[in-house]
Parts: sequence; C-alpha cells; structure tokens
Amino acid sequence: MTASDPRRQAANREAVRRMSAARPVLVEVLPAGDVVPGMTGSTILTSGPPLPWPEYHGGQRHAILSAAVYEGLAKTLDGADAALGSGAITLAATHDHGCVGSVAGIYTASMPVFVVEDPDTGVRGFCNMYEGESRKRLNYGVFDDDVRAGLDFLRDDLAPVLADAVRRLGGVPLTPLISRALRMGDELHSRNTAATTLFLKHITPALLDMAAAGAAPAARTAFDFLAQSDYSFLRLSMAASKVSADCARDVAYSSVVTAMSISCREFGIRVSGTGDVWHRGSLPDVDCQLFEGFTPEDIEWMGGESHITETTGLGGFAQAAAFPLQHYQGGDAAAMVEMNTRMYDITVAEHPEYLIPYLGFRGSPVGIDVFRVLDTGIQPVIDGGLAGRGGGQIGAGILRAPMDCFTAAAEGWTRRYGD
Amino acid sequence: MTASDPRRQAANREAVRRMSAARPVLVEVLPAGDVVPGMTGSTILTSGPPLPWPEYHGGQRHAILSAAVYEGLAKTLDGADAALGSGAITLAATHDHGCVGSVAGIYTASMPVFVVEDPDTGVRGFCNMYEGESRKRLNYGVFDDDVRAGLDFLRDDLAPVLADAVRRLGGVPLTPLISRALRMGDELHSRNTAATTLFLKHITPALLDMAAAGAAPAARTAFDFLAQSDYSFLRLSMAASKVSADCARDVAYSSVVTAMSISCREFGIRVSGTGDVWHRGSLPDVDCQLFEGFTPEDIEWMGGESHITETTGLGGFAQAAAFPLQHYQGGDAAAMVEMNTRMYDITVAEHPEYLIPYLGFRGSPVGIDVFRVLDTGIQPVIDGGLAGRGGGQIGAGILRAPMDCFTAAAEGWTRRYGD
Repeated sequence: MTASDPRRQAANREAVRRMSAARPVLVEVLPAGDVVPGMTGSTILTSGPPLPWPEYHGGQRHAILSAAVYEGLAKTLDGADAALGSGAITLAATHDHGCVGSVAGIYTASMPVFVVEDPDTGVRGFCNMYEGESRKRLNYGVFDDDVRAGLDFLRDDLAPVLADAVRRLGGVPLTPLISRALRMGDELHSRNTAATTLFLKHITPALLDMAAAGAAPAARTAFDFLAQSDYSFLRLSMAASKVSADCARDVAYSSVVTAMSISCREFGIRVSGTGDVWHRGSLPDVDCQLFEGFTPEDIEWMGGESHITETTGLGGFAQAAAFPLQHYQGGDAAAMVEMNTRMYDITVAEHPEYLIPYLGFRGSPVGIDVFRVLDTGIQPVIDGGLAGRGGGQIGAGILRAPMDCFTAAAEGWTRRYGD
Repeated sequence: MTASDPRRQAANREAVRRMSAARPVLVEVLPAGDVVPGMTGSTILTSGPPLPWPEYHGGQRHAILSAAVYEGLAKTLDGADAALGSGAITLAATHDHGCVGSVAGIYTASMPVFVVEDPDTGVRGFCNMYEGESRKRLNYGVFDDDVRAGLDFLRDDLAPVLADAVRRLGGVPLTPLISRALRMGDELHSRNTAATTLFLKHITPALLDMAAAGAAPAARTAFDFLAQSDYSFLRLSMAASKVSADCARDVAYSSVVTAMSISCREFGIRVSGTGDVWHRGSLPDVDCQLFEGFTPEDIEWMGGESHITETTGLGGFAQAAAFPLQHYQGGDAAAMVEMNTRMYDITVAEHPEYLIPYLGFRGSPVGIDVFRVLDTGIQPVIDGGLAGRGGGQIGAGILRAPMDCFTAAAEGWTRRYGD
C-alpha cells in the first residue's frame, strides 16, 4: 500500500477519534510503587526512548543516580552506578509504564503519582508531582538536602491531602478544566496558570470539609504549596495527555504520532500503527528565550516528555490560546498564531473539546501524521522549558521536533505495511 | 482658550495620571447605611443621572419601589410610590454617594457593600453584591419572595463571611487581580471568569482558617455561592473602577470623562474639568446578541453603570484581552481587536497596569477625551448586558456611548473655560 492508501487515512481518523474521545479523570493519588504497572521497589523510570545505562550522561544520569540514593536503593552515587550497571536497580522508560516525565522525569516507588483514567476505555496514565519553583529540582538534575526535603514534602504532606480531596470529590474530570483553561490564556504546557487556579477552586470545597474535620493545617499547607506556583497543573495536563495518546495506540495502518520523547541523547516518536517502537532521531531544534545571564551554550538536554501535550492538541498546538506566553518564550502574538495555524497542515483533525477562542473557537489541531510532516516539511512545534548545564531551568522557547525522527517513522511504517 | 489649548492637554494628562495611579484595595464589607457617605436609613440609590421621581418608569421604577418594600420603608408598592413622591423616602443617584449600580443599581441601607479604597488618596468607592445567576434579580427590575430571599442571603450569609475573610487578610489589593485576569481572558466587565477565580483563590486561606475555627458551614456556603458564578468579581471591578475614576475628578481644564451612566431615559457623562455636572443625551446605540427567543424589541433600558469599567480602561477598552466573549456578545476576534484598537484614538494614555497580551502587552486605552470623541466621530464602546421587558437579562452586546452626550459635554466645558 502507499502512504495515501485509504486504509491509512481511515486508520488515522480512527486513531484521532480515540485520542479526542478520551475524557481523563483524576481518580487517585498513590505512591508509584502501589499503582504503576510493572513498577517494583527497585525500579527507576526516566524520560526518553530507553538507552543502555552507560549512555546516560550529564543531568539525566545524575538525576537517576540521585533517585537511587533518595529511594534508599544505594547509599552513594557510586553504589547506585554499580547497581544500575549490574541490573540490581531496574532502569526503565516512563512511557513503557504509563508514565510521562517532566525533563529527566524521575520516578521511584515511593514517589506519589496522579492516577488519571479514561472511564470508557479504562486506559490509565500517571504523572508524578511538580517540585515547586526552586531552580533546584531532581527532575532538572539537582539533588541535595533541600531537594530531598522537597520530595519528602510531596510524599508526606501534599499527596495525602490531595488523595483525600480526590476521594471526597469522587474524582476530578480533567477535560472540563483543560477546555476552560484554554479560554483563560493557557495552552496547558508552558502555561498552566488558569488550569492550576481552576483545579484549586475545584478542590477547595473538599479542603474546607477537611479543615472542618480537623485537618486544617494540612489542608492549608497543601493549598498554599499548590497556589504559590502556576505550574502545578502541568503534571495533570501531562497525565491526561498520556491517557489520550494511549487511547490511540495500536491502530493498524495509522501513521499518527502517539508519543514524542526526549532523552539526554535523542528525540524519539511512537506511531500508532507501529506499536511501541521508538523512531529515533537527533535532539530538537530550538528558538529560545533564556533567563538573564544565560547563553545557548548553557542549554543541556536531560530528557523531557511534557510534549505529550503537543501530541494531543495542546501546548504549541494551542498556543494561539496563550498570548501571555510571548514574553516567556519569545515571539509575538502574530508569530504564535502563524505557528499554531501551520499545525493544521500536519494533523488529521480538530479537537472537539480543545477550542481556541482567537481562532473563532476552532478546535486545536490534533493527531500529527508522520507523512504530512514529511510532505510539508513542517516540523511540530513544542512550547518547552530549557534545562541548563549543572541543573535548573534556564529559559524557555519553541522546540521543533527533528525531521529525522519522522523519516525513521515513515521507514518503520513502510517496513510494516509495505509501500 | 481653545480645545487644543496646552492647559487642557496638561490637565488631561494629570487626570489620567491620577486615574491610572489608583491602586484600589477591598478594605471592608459593611451595610451601605454604615459606610456610604450621606446614606440614611430612608435613602434609596439608583443608577443614572438623577431624574425627578415621576420620570422613572418600567423596570427601574419597579426596582426602586420594590427596594422600599424590601427595606421596610413602605408596606406596599403604592405606599412606596407615595413616600417617594413626598420625599419621605430620599431617592438619589449612586454616583453622588461613591457607588456604582449594575443595571437599575439599587442600594438600600441594609444591603452590604464592598468598600474599596485607594490608600494613597483615601478615595473610596462602593458596590453592592451580585444576586447570582437567576434571571430574577432586583437590579433587573424583578422582586418576589425568591428575590427577597436572595437579598437576605447576601446580607446574612455571604457578607459576614466576606467581611471576616477581608479582615483576616488585612484587605485585598484589587489591581494585581485585575492585571492578572487581563492575561487570563477577562476584560473585567462582561467577562470576570478569571478574576472571580483568582479572588476565590486569594481568600481561600482565610476561609480555611475560618473553617478551622468552627465556621466551616458558613465558609463553605459562601465559597459555593461565589464559585457558582463567573460574574461575582464584576462588583469589585466596578468599585475599583469607581475609585480610579473618582481619583481623576475635578482637574481644572480637563476634558477627560470620569463617569458614564445610564438611567431608564438617558445616557449621561461626567467630565473631570466640569465637576459633578451630568452631560446628558440619548440612550446608547447597541449591537446585540440576544439569548434564544428574544428580539431587539424586548430590550428595556432600566439603568446601568457597570461601564465605569470602560471609563478606566477595562471592558470594551480591553476587549482584545477577552476573545472568549465573542460568542456571548457577537462579533469575532478581528472585530474585537479593531474596536479595542480604535479606542486609542479617543483616549489620552495607556494604562500602566492593564496590559493586553494580544497587543504585545500594550497598556489599555485609558482616559476618554470628550474632544477626541467629537473630532474623530468614534464612540466609546461598552461591553454590556441587556435587560428585557418584564425583567431579567436577555442578552449582551456592544453598546456605543451616544454622541450627543459628548456634544453636551463639550458645550459645558466651553461654557466653563471659554473657547
């Protein structure tokens, strides 16, 4: 068959239908080890198409080693290195366990995760929690006593309150919050200001009830932590997007992208019709806006999968909903509209729930078709944060998914379905 | 002097400087009779340049009569009519008492008001509270047992909780909430979704503390009421705008508009350099988007002063921040940008805190100059709700301030300062 075969077109429509039909609900907050499929006490998950342990370097390697120490799987970084080399610690890819990673994307068994589920299909996705606004965060390759204390706080203070609130509410449907946030200046990747505020509003009645039941200090502490950052919702947006993307997995003949992922060495994509194979390529191109005092030479790739949002019609694919981002990531409103609009040329459909007010409430472009990317030469755009050498976020910008991944994906698709 | 006299230009700059420098803070929530200057137990305030009692008709008249009954100043509507006719009940204009009215804008002494103050100048403004999403509201000319119960709820249940929260917080600065909401799809007149959510987020810590102190049911009830409507913040936006506008009062030679107001019969404006004189004209022109089942013949004018927001650089003057409004009030994003941009032609300055993301964070046009309106023929645009015959809101749209008010204002200015 050819790339324009009607079977491929029909498969793509079906894949995007499934992706757009998902209605992810936050159903629980639990330790990863209790709920993530295949996660053992000695498993560490990290972002990116998986690599042999010796291939991980820089911030991502340091984050993985530190995670082993944090989890008590090793006493020292050297001990962790040995255990990772021998396989005593299992290192695996987040995406293979229903998870998505922010930057290095580190998961250990004790870390709490948001459990998000599509009720119709039962598909589940998971994401761990935002460490807060400090430049020092494990997922940006930094580990010290402050980072450890922050992770302990998420586990011991924040997660139990959120778990209680979610139980009291009987789950939190995320699609209405996301749809609404798109009308309030968010694109749900680099901007989650509205979604975070709406989520807080949604859980406040439960927090008030908990306060009445004697848990006021804990409820207040959790509220204050979530309220002080506008990014708290990103992890929910990522988990919801992972659920949506996974709903579109394994549609035979489909050339729709179901995951885009970065490690310290590569960009990789998965395509619905080629299953869980990673089609690998070079690191992304980037137009960046760095924080004061940094230069492009300071950028370090240490992984990243938050562009699961772009995979499902959010982030860069909805940036015309989020003009306030222009200061943060550079560019102006007209450029954002143009970038957003070009994404319709490489996608299969318009999302029925993700509407962009500026575009007359047109649905966001959803379902990246590998062959359309190659035919048009238009790279998917990604609103991304940028990590710096030595750890921490040093800026933000527009990343462009590298063309070689799409070439590799087309070859993989053609090997499977013939040309 | 001529209209282009340097003294007028300088006065206009000064008026707008004062208007833009105001930083309104919600300082208290109290019954109108306890805090509004000149308000007695037998005073009723209503929207619009004041008219003799017999001139009020329709919904506005019915609202005033009903207010007298609600407040216990009369037993029946007929009794109220007599008391208003004899002067036993004092009917006065909101604007003359630091207040602004939504639609008919009814205030009686027992009704709670937001007390908003500019700390630098001590200028105070007041606004009463949103009755909720019911089509039946006193300010839309409807009064029955449900409306009475709603007003009692505001007085007995909502206001005490808000008063407590504001005290615990030591006041709530409104400018940061307004500035932020402009980045989140609001223009603070017809759309207050983000501002309402941000206000709730701001007061939640106080509500949690109240819940811990045993007031959980009251706190929860107040939260739920405010959370169920996206318009709750409008009254705070109006009070803040009234404070800002009044900061610009009485600058000699200035031709900047300091109030725009509608009664059941007229549109009126006040101008800084001509003090508290109302320059009166015809009712506004309107491009409307009516709710299902209504026609333009159903529109009834029963007052309105929420366009104090437009007077200070919000509402229609910031509509390019609020593309989600296009469905509600008609038009598309391009039309909204064009209308917003034209307002720069009739204003004196750009607001330093009210920035419009789509326009590259340009400050909103602020300070309507009567002579620029006349020179350009461009009417100020107002994002407005529309009341219907028999009461209730029946739609929304763009109102245009009528040109004859500006002609009258220019004549008033010229009488005072010569031509």
